[in-house]
Amino acid sequence: MFLTRTEYDRGVNTFSPEGRLFQVEYAIEAIKLGSTAIGLKTKDGVVLAVEKRITSPLLEPSSVEKIMEIDGHIGCAMSGLIADARTLVEHARVETQNHRFSYGEPMTVESTTQALCDLALRFGEGDEESMSRPFGVSLLIAGHDENGPSLDDVLNGYYTDPSGTFWQCNAKAIGSGSEGADSSLQEQYNKDLTLQEAETIALSILKQVMEEKVTPNNVDIARVAPTYHLYTPSEVEAVITRL
Amino acid sequence: MFLTRTEYDRGVNTFSPEGRLFQVEYAIEAIKLGSTAIGLKTKDGVVLAVEKRITSPLLEPSSVEKIMEIDGHIGCAMSGLIADARTLVEHARVETQNHRFSYGEPMTVESTTQALCDLALRFGEGDEESMSRPFGVSLLIAGHDENGPSLDDVLNGYYTDPSGTFWQCNAKAIGSGSEGADSSLQEQYNKDLTLQEAETIALSILKQVMEEKVTPNNVDIARVAPTYHLYTPSEVEAVITRL
Amino acid sequence: MFLTRTEYDRGVNTFSPEGRLFQVEYAIEAIKLGSTAIGLKTKDGVVLAVEKRITSPLLEPSSVEKIMEIDGHIGCAMSGLIADARTLVEHARVETQNHRFSYGEPMTVESTTQALCDLALRFGEGDEESMSRPFGVSLLIAGHDENGPSLDDVLNGYYTDPSGTFWQCNAKAIGSGSEGADSSLQEQYNKDLTLQEAETIALSILKQVMEEKVTPNNVDIARVAPTYHLYTPSEVEAVITRL
Amino acid sequence: MFLTRTEYDRGVNTFSPEGRLFQVEYAIEAIKLGSTAIGLKTKDGVVLAVEKRITSPLLEPSSVEKIMEIDGHIGCAMSGLIADARTLVEHARVETQNHRFSYGEPMTVESTTQALCDLALRFGEGDEESMSRPFGVSLLIAGHDENGPSLDDVLNGYYTDPSGTFWQCNAKAIGSGSEGADSSLQEQYNKDLTLQEAETIALSILKQVMEEKVTPNNVDIARVAPTYHLYTPSEVEAVITRL
Amino acid sequence: MFLTRTEYDRGVNTFSPEGRLFQVEYAIEAIKLGSTAIGLKTKDGVVLAVEKRITSPLLEPSSVEKIMEIDGHIGCAMSGLIADARTLVEHARVETQNHRFSYGEPMTVESTTQALCDLALRFGEGDEESMSRPFGVSLLIAGHDENGPSLDDVLNGYYTDPSGTFWQCNAKAIGSGSEGADSSLQEQYNKDLTLQEAETIALSILKQVMEEKVTPNNVDIARVAPTYHLYTPSEVEAVITRL
Amino acid sequence: MFLTRTEYDRGVNTFSPEGRLFQVEYAIEAIKLGSTAIGLKTKDGVVLAVEKRITSPLLEPSSVEKIMEIDGHIGCAMSGLIADARTLVEHARVETQNHRFSYGEPMTVESTTQALCDLALRFGEGDEESMSRPFGVSLLIAGHDENGPSLDDVLNGYYTDPSGTFWQCNAKAIGSGSEGADSSLQEQYNKDLTLQEAETIALSILKQVMEEKVTPNNVDIARVAPTYHLYTPSEVEAVITRL
Amino acid sequence: MFLTRTEYDRGVNTFSPEGRLFQVEYAIEAIKLGSTAIGLKTKDGVVLAVEKRITSPLLEPSSVEKIMEIDGHIGCAMSGLIADARTLVEHARVETQNHRFSYGEPMTVESTTQALCDLALRFGEGDEESMSRPFGVSLLIAGHDENGPSLDDVLNGYYTDPSGTFWQCNAKAIGSGSEGADSSLQEQYNKDLTLQEAETIALSILKQVMEEKVTPNNVDIARVAPTYHLYTPSEVEAVITRL
Repeated sequence: MFLTRTEYDRGVNTFSPEGRLFQVEYAIEAIKLGSTAIGLKTKDGVVLAVEKRITSPLLEPSSVEKIMEIDGHIGCAMSGLIADARTLVEHARVETQNHRFSYGEPMTVESTTQALCDLALRFGEGDEESMSRPFGVSLLIAGHDENGPSLDDVLNGYYTDPSGTFWQCNAKAIGSGSEGADSSLQEQYNKDLTLQEAETIALSILKQVMEEKVTPNNVDIARVAPTYHLYTPSEVEAVITRL
Repeated sequence: MFLTRTEYDRGVNTFSPEGRLFQVEYAIEAIKLGSTAIGLKTKDGVVLAVEKRITSPLLEPSSVEKIMEIDGHIGCAMSGLIADARTLVEHARVETQNHRFSYGEPMTVESTTQALCDLALRFGEGDEESMSRPFGVSLLIAGHDENGPSLDDVLNGYYTDPSGTFWQCNAKAIGSGSEGADSSLQEQYNKDLTLQEAETIALSILKQVMEEKVTPNNVDIARVAPTYHLYTPSEVEAVITRL
Repeated sequence: MFLTRTEYDRGVNTFSPEGRLFQVEYAIEAIKLGSTAIGLKTKDGVVLAVEKRITSPLLEPSSVEKIMEIDGHIGCAMSGLIADARTLVEHARVETQNHRFSYGEPMTVESTTQALCDLALRFGEGDEESMSRPFGVSLLIAGHDENGPSLDDVLNGYYTDPSGTFWQCNAKAIGSGSEGADSSLQEQYNKDLTLQEAETIALSILKQVMEEKVTPNNVDIARVAPTYHLYTPSEVEAVITRL
Repeated sequence: MFLTRTEYDRGVNTFSPEGRLFQVEYAIEAIKLGSTAIGLKTKDGVVLAVEKRITSPLLEPSSVEKIMEIDGHIGCAMSGLIADARTLVEHARVETQNHRFSYGEPMTVESTTQALCDLALRFGEGDEESMSRPFGVSLLIAGHDENGPSLDDVLNGYYTDPSGTFWQCNAKAIGSGSEGADSSLQEQYNKDLTLQEAETIALSILKQVMEEKVTPNNVDIARVAPTYHLYTPSEVEAVITRL
Repeated sequence: MFLTRTEYDRGVNTFSPEGRLFQVEYAIEAIKLGSTAIGLKTKDGVVLAVEKRITSPLLEPSSVEKIMEIDGHIGCAMSGLIADARTLVEHARVETQNHRFSYGEPMTVESTTQALCDLALRFGEGDEESMSRPFGVSLLIAGHDENGPSLDDVLNGYYTDPSGTFWQCNAKAIGSGSEGADSSLQEQYNKDLTLQEAETIALSILKQVMEEKVTPNNVDIARVAPTYHLYTPSEVEAVITRL
Repeated sequence: MFLTRTEYDRGVNTFSPEGRLFQVEYAIEAIKLGSTAIGLKTKDGVVLAVEKRITSPLLEPSSVEKIMEIDGHIGCAMSGLIADARTLVEHARVETQNHRFSYGEPMTVESTTQALCDLALRFGEGDEESMSRPFGVSLLIAGHDENGPSLDDVLNGYYTDPSGTFWQCNAKAIGSGSEGADSSLQEQYNKDLTLQEAETIALSILKQVMEEKVTPNNVDIARVAPTYHLYTPSEVEAVITRL
Repeated sequence: MFLTRTEYDRGVNTFSPEGRLFQVEYAIEAIKLGSTAIGLKTKDGVVLAVEKRITSPLLEPSSVEKIMEIDGHIGCAMSGLIADARTLVEHARVETQNHRFSYGEPMTVESTTQALCDLALRFGEGDEESMSRPFGVSLLIAGHDENGPSLDDVLNGYYTDPSGTFWQCNAKAIGSGSEGADSSLQEQYNKDLTLQEAETIALSILKQVMEEKVTPNNVDIARVAPTYHLYTPSEVEAVITRL
């Protein structure tokens, strides 16, 4: 009886008797070990904020990138195995570039997100592009297109409840502090937030879940409103001051 | 002796001594974890209704898609692993598009359903298109062609009783609440239902099996009569009001 | 010692110390779980009759197909995993079509049956066309060619006694009720039966092994005499009336 | 210690510590489960006789083929898994046809036998033509060429004593009754037998090892003298009468 | 329970129930068995220093290479399995050469480092270029380009905390003595160090963690300021004298 | 602890903790089960003699071939799995034929032997020509070229002591009786033996290790002096008479 | 707990929890079972000496080759599995020949050694040229090029301490007697030895570690000074006399 779990959970793509895919469930544990990331959608654009975990004073904070640009109108925050995220982001960059080249217009945010999901959920199939295990990372995709701003929760959403391939959200937290952060977001979020209010909420919630004092060195903020912009240290400093 | 079960059930395509394929049986457990979906066939067309499980108020309900269009005359409701469903739906869309292109006419519903089954039941064979495990999802295919309306129960039917590749039904429920819903359907269904009556029955049965209050946010309704139409929130609201 | 059986029987193509191939033996268990099918050869043609197992009143009986046409002069009844049967039938249809195209004449029944066996018994060899496990289905092939009518028992025959690749029979039953049905056939069969007498015997034996009342909804009858014809519900009704 | 055997014997091509290949030894058990076949070489030609095991009166005896023609001057009797034999016989037929086509003369019996061995003993090597397990069948090859008549024992010979690839014999029995039959052959055989005497000896020995009464339905006889001929039921009847 | 660890940690790319990839964690143990290497970034360039472990007086010290040139403006120090390092360095050399050839300018240090990471973190995927296990080596990449000097910690950084793909550092130690060396670096490092001061600090820290007396035979020093230069024994001797 | 051996010895190409390759050691057990073969080199040529093990009086002795010609100036005696020997001999025949065709002169004995070794020792590497397990046979290669006569012990030599790829010998025995036969050879061999004396010694030693009386039926003798010649039964009889 | 070791050490390319690659460590045990080989570098050239282990007086000593020429200016001595050495030597011969052909000058000794290492350390990666297990042999490469004489210790060096890919040495011993021989070398070696003194030291140390009396039959000596020369028996005899 005690064998039941250990027997099924190493087969990447094998159902347990209860219909579960254990490797997918374990991947979310890898995400839960990651640093916290938060996204908020406002009518003017989307704000992303992440914790950076600088473990040594001799590290260059700017080399720890947890918010990346995908295309001019799309950015993403990540939590979990960053090398896995890079594979996904690279894939998305190629897709959006190809789309611009082929159709002369930017790819919609939803199509970009769906393309990421299609790659991410095809693990274990042995073909050349897919991974041999589930991706151990979650992404918050922030974008702004003809349908206005949008915030998508990728992989985290699927792994928690495979009832959808991704979730579109008004606000969402991922990573080790996501549980507490999500509660705070539900309390503080409303649809009429300004971008500046969203920045303040994102950073104040991040502050609660971080063990260290918030400085421009250990958090990153970005907005897509309507284009991607990663805040400079002084812009981050300004938000911190507002808290 | 206690080893017997655990030994056979991880081989995706290995018979147990009783002639059973355990991975197929476990896949149906994944379907049983899914949200409930209901379909009813009337002489005027087919109605599909699904539960959407919105776990957080910050989620965008419209991003949880559990009813999808395959072609102008075919739609489907799904329960289980939605990423698996997407693979099947994408395959069906390509097939129906190719058919239109090659023959200048829509593909029949039965051919479309059969094409889905052929892909779905070829798992574990190691070729490029097939999956390494059974699909963990069930589909209700609603269509309308020269033979009139039809409702097909795919995978759920096969996995429960592999005596057919799919079932054509007058009414059918799949997912976690399917057992109770199927009983209710047998009581309330008759062949002379109007589309409107079918909508009302579908939603009232869904209401019984859902834990939450039914709102336009947590259910989706669609009809194929004779073309696919996903109800707008206000159209769903109207049906709710009729209950 | 108690390990002996469980150790050998999962290797699809591995001999046990007694020279047995266990996966082949387990496949026959899958066949034994199937619905009963019966075939009788008369001098005028062959009759096939199958039980359909309609589990819900909301199912469309005609969507449960257990007798299929292979070519104008060949049909088959099946018991076991119907998806496996479809693979075999599709293969046979392509073979017979190719034969007609290449040689301008129908393929003989024996060649068709042999082609099915060649595909079916090549499992586990890892090439593209073959299966990774034995087929979990048995077929009764009814045909009529220049050598007159013939009835072939495929896979069931091989799996039970691998001393032949298939059996040509005067009468044969397969599936869950085959044991009792075979005894009845041996008592009632003689070579001078008319087609009508054969229909009556087939259905009366099927009636004995079925748990439900026989209706045009839950049995199918077909004949190849000399061309394939699947009985309409009213033709089935007529046979039922004669019982 | 009790693990020793079960550990080595499933690796198709792995030596046990005693230098044995267990899967090869288990294949001979599959042969020993087969029906008995007997061959005798006389100066005028070779006689083959086999037991047919007709398990039901409704079976067509002629559909159980255990003696097959390879080329006009070569035939073979088989015991064990008949589907395996078919693969070998098909291979030999292609080889002999190619030889006739390329060189304008029949292939010698020894070359034909050697070609069969080369295919049969290359199992487990993973290339396209070879099997993943040893062949579970034994063949008695009867032939007549410019070197006169010859009788070769294939696979049975190799599996029993891998000191040769095949054995040329004056007389040989294979299958479940081979042990008793071989003793009788050693007593009764001499080089000056006529073909008719050989027929009588073969059938009388077969009669001893069969559980049922010998009839034209449950035995087959063939000769290669110098061309292949499968006896008709009345020719078999004539031999039975002589006993 | 005691099985938990041993069961998961041999699957190169399998998550444990806690979301960990054990083979990656074990690879860092291979790095910890390696000799110590130290890097310091100054405003004028980067200094690398490594311990060489000459185990026998009959060895040629110059044949133990632990600092290698990648391109004229990039060098690297390594700790762990040197054969793995060579694969990475060869890959980087080809990349930088191709870049020079294609674009007529040197590759930036960051792009070079990222290219190394992309190769290194793609292990276990079975494609031709990637390894079947994680690389058992860590690299300190020292470079100087249009953005000035930079020092990157590759693999060691990722394996310890997969929150980034690599770390840009002001100063860093890797290998068996890295823990103590890192503490000393944090105490002694400041951004205004001259190259000569950096040399002295690097060697004095190395001296602390080495078991033997420091000689030109058992340490290597290199600088990238702005071009790669490996110190001659007499240049090393000069630094030793300054201690 | 008792698991140690059984765990390592099934991996065809895996070192045990003591640096041993167990499958290679087990292959030599297969050779030790083989019939005894003896070779002696004289200044005039090489003599080979083998035991044939005719298990039944109905077998054709000439069909048990344990001495085979490779090229006009090279022959070999074998012990172990004869099917494995055939693969090696076929390979050598092709090599020597190609050499004659390309260079217009016979291949030297040493090159031929080395080519055999190269094939034989490449087992387990998964490429198309190599075997998945070690060859279970040993060969004594007798040849005569511009360097005079030579006798090479292939595989037996390597498997016993992998310090060489093959051994050139003055006299050597392989197979089940090799231990006793080797001692006798060391006592009786000297470099000035005539071919006739060598024949007598070979057969007299074979006689000691055989359980049956030596007859022209159960031994084969061949010489390469300087061309290959397999003795006729009467020539063998003549040697027997001289004993 | 006692499972820890046996679980990790059969995976050719799997790290143990301590970061070790056990198959590599076991390969060195295969080398330690080998015969002793010794190399000494002098200013005039390099001397190699090996023990030959002639197990039977009927063996041809010259057929046991443990020193081989790679190119006119490079030779090597080996210890361990000689068939593995042959693969490496063949590879090196092709490399050096290609280099001469392409560039019109000999390959340097260091490049040759590095090419050998690159092949040798790529085991377990499944590509066509690499081995499925580590090479079970160690090589002493003696060479003489524009940089003067050099002596490289390949594989033995890497396997013992993977801190380098190979070692350049002044003097080195490998094989079963290497431990004692290395100590003696450290005592007796100095850089000003003449070639003749080096020969004497090599043979006197070999004499200490060998169990038998040293004769021209059981040792081989070679020098590269500056070209490869394998000593004739009388040249070896001369060195023995000098002892």
